[in-house]
Amino acid sequence: MVGMDRLTADLHALCEFGRNEAGGWTRPAYSQVDQDAHLWLASRMEQAGLATRFDGAGNLIGRLEAQPGGTQDGALVIGSHIDTVPRGGWLDGALGVLAGLEVARRLLESRAKRTRPFEVIAFRDEEGRFGPFTGSRAMTGKLDLTLLPTMRDVDGLYLSQALTGSSLSTTTFATAAIPVGAISAYLELHIEQGPVLEAAGKRIGVVSAIVGQARFSLQFQGRPDHAGTTPMNLRRDAFAAAADFASHWRKMIMAEGKGVAVGTVGVVRVEPNAGNVVPSKVTLGAELRDIDDLRLNRLTELTGDLARHSAQDLGVEVSLRVTHRTQPALMNGSFQAAILDCAIRRAYASMTLPSGAGHDAQNFADLVPAAMIFVPSIGGRSHCPEEATDAADLDAGLNILLDVAAGYLST
Amino acid sequence: MVGMDRLTADLHALCEFGRNEAGGWTRPAYSQVDQDAHLWLASRMEQAGLATRFDGAGNLIGRLEAQPGGTQDGALVIGSHIDTVPRGGWLDGALGVLAGLEVARRLLESRAKRTRPFEVIAFRDEEGRFGPFTGSRAMTGKLDLTLLPTMRDVDGLYLSQALTGSSLSTTTFATAAIPVGAISAYLELHIEQGPVLEAAGKRIGVVSAIVGQARFSLQFQGRPDHAGTTPMNLRRDAFAAAADFASHWRKMIMAEGKGVAVGTVGVVRVEPNAGNVVPSKVTLGAELRDIDDLRLNRLTELTGDLARHSAQDLGVEVSLRVTHRTQPALMNGSFQAAILDCAIRRAYASMTLPSGAGHDAQNFADLVPAAMIFVPSIGGRSHCPEEATDAADLDAGLNILLDVAAGYLST
Repeated sequence: MVGMDRLTADLHALCEFGRNEAGGWTRPAYSQVDQDAHLWLASRMEQAGLATRFDGAGNLIGRLEAQPGGTQDGALVIGSHIDTVPRGGWLDGALGVLAGLEVARRLLESRAKRTRPFEVIAFRDEEGRFGPFTGSRAMTGKLDLTLLPTMRDVDGLYLSQALTGSSLSTTTFATAAIPVGAISAYLELHIEQGPVLEAAGKRIGVVSAIVGQARFSLQFQGRPDHAGTTPMNLRRDAFAAAADFASHWRKMIMAEGKGVAVGTVGVVRVEPNAGNVVPSKVTLGAELRDIDDLRLNRLTELTGDLARHSAQDLGVEVSLRVTHRTQPALMNGSFQAAILDCAIRRAYASMTLPSGAGHDAQNFADLVPAAMIFVPSIGGRSHCPEEATDAADLDAGLNILLDVAAGYLST
Repeated sequence: MVGMDRLTADLHALCEFGRNEAGGWTRPAYSQVDQDAHLWLASRMEQAGLATRFDGAGNLIGRLEAQPGGTQDGALVIGSHIDTVPRGGWLDGALGVLAGLEVARRLLESRAKRTRPFEVIAFRDEEGRFGPFTGSRAMTGKLDLTLLPTMRDVDGLYLSQALTGSSLSTTTFATAAIPVGAISAYLELHIEQGPVLEAAGKRIGVVSAIVGQARFSLQFQGRPDHAGTTPMNLRRDAFAAAADFASHWRKMIMAEGKGVAVGTVGVVRVEPNAGNVVPSKVTLGAELRDIDDLRLNRLTELTGDLARHSAQDLGVEVSLRVTHRTQPALMNGSFQAAILDCAIRRAYASMTLPSGAGHDAQNFADLVPAAMIFVPSIGGRSHCPEEATDAADLDAGLNILLDVAAGYLST
């Protein structure tokens, strides 16, 4: 586990950037500590023998050219990110980037055949401080550049303000888009961030697809009656309607989602939220995720039907607004087969599963063959200081990433 | 409507105390404006020929002695309050006190027979700034005097601080308790604060009972999983459990409550209340009200059963804490019959109904015959600037109060 020791050392070194005294790590995209971490990473890449550059969106690219006789275009990319959510964990994103760097070292040391270029990329703002996947969307031409001046973080800070003093500005982002053919394939190693691999006793997860998402805001509008003096049948209770909806909605997803689709009511706001007043207004923030786009549409339609039905039953009004919608991203079948094959050869227990979380890989999946390898998250925990993965599982993930990358580069 | 004109003038005069520029009235118990309003009321009482005094809890008592040959004890009390909730209406409480004053004037003018004393009382702090019914509980010996030094308002101000500079202190409250026999009956005229009379097209409500209440805090404890990466069957979703409970609970109350009991989930707190995190903790503030104490106990038991059932179904923990419990207060049957009788003679459409809100009358109902007369609330609105009642309904309520009081005093 020589490579593993180096990867662990890199992970620990990165932990020095944005460590919180109270636990966890905070490296917000385009902050000073994020920039410092990227500069450290660039120097580590250079030490390993990669040529480095930052693009117009701040994405850091470390590159190995193909061996003599290979092509100049069609690079294999291993990507992920090193920004974090506030008080996040040490592996989310960081594992994928630093494992990519270790793969580069191993390719060089082993003098493995490289018929095409190899790139390790740390994408900026995967966690969506200023918007989802700002860096990888800029690189894949999926970022609406006209929106850049309006992009703000949760505290109201504009992206343009965050970029002040750096070599970046909202006008440099246009130059980040890569030309057709520059990349030929995309791989990403990531922690699962869920409990499935651990529950199944598997070491390697082969991602079938990254789920598509539909996010809704549901607003139930009733009447603020006195909780003592208003008989049950004369009420227009917005929370009664919202609770009735949520209860039926969950059962609908369980029945129609075939164990794959998930739906969550994560945000609930009740007005006036007083003990002796019948709730007059309830806003629910809900989301659906599924790898099947047709089914996601169908679940969305059923969501509206159920909301209207509950509202009608309780005599309240309801409005549903879809606030966000992304398509599922299917992972490449040949890469999935290659990952399974490598896992069998190394005797790692593996399984195929969808990714319920979004990843930079989803922005490449419609452009080039793309794949993701998952390793287990202990207790399913992520985005928190307790985020962890067994060392043996990290080693397994690194080995599979290396096997698949070396296999692809050799042909 | 001579008496009605005087009552309306008094109501409008009281409106000068605590009027909000933005609408509504704010007279918090034991505040300076509340004290000013009580001093104005005392002078109005004196002008009408009543002897006035403040007791040790600040309750204002205006008294007419019995006519010669009558008794000195066993007064008939007409009571209510003139404090308000923040930005409350102009009739809640004020109507009952000022109608009592007008009844006193009419009794004097008509030289009606008075075999016993008559008192109009404005109780302090009916709205519960420092605790529910502070004044009428002090007068009826129901206030735990040892708690007085700990009583605070929602902003943390102690009752003792609010009393600073007045002739009252927490030690004077003990003197407010009235001796056995001092009062022989209690009447209160009040706006309904609900939609029942208006919906039924009735002018006079005969209150059968003031409901008992059970207030609960229900806490559902789950686990804060990632909303994308955690399959539905591996979640412990606290909001799913709370919604399931609330949905079943409402149906249970509709079925078991016989159209009388009411139950409300008014307060909902969800943690962490983030779109992409399965809710880990939900606290519901709920209450039940019923005029049948046995049924209130049974509904409370069923509440616990349903909460445990929903929690078990969703794999979460639940705890239920009863935070407040009061008994129903039955109104006196002879008074109810007398109110109905007077309404028939004056050709006012009337009906019997429970009071879903608490009133000072409930503190007298177990000591002396007590009764309440309701007049309709337009749109069922109360505790808000829009609180209103038709002038003809106010007149009807005043007339019935006078009839019943005069009838009682004559025997």
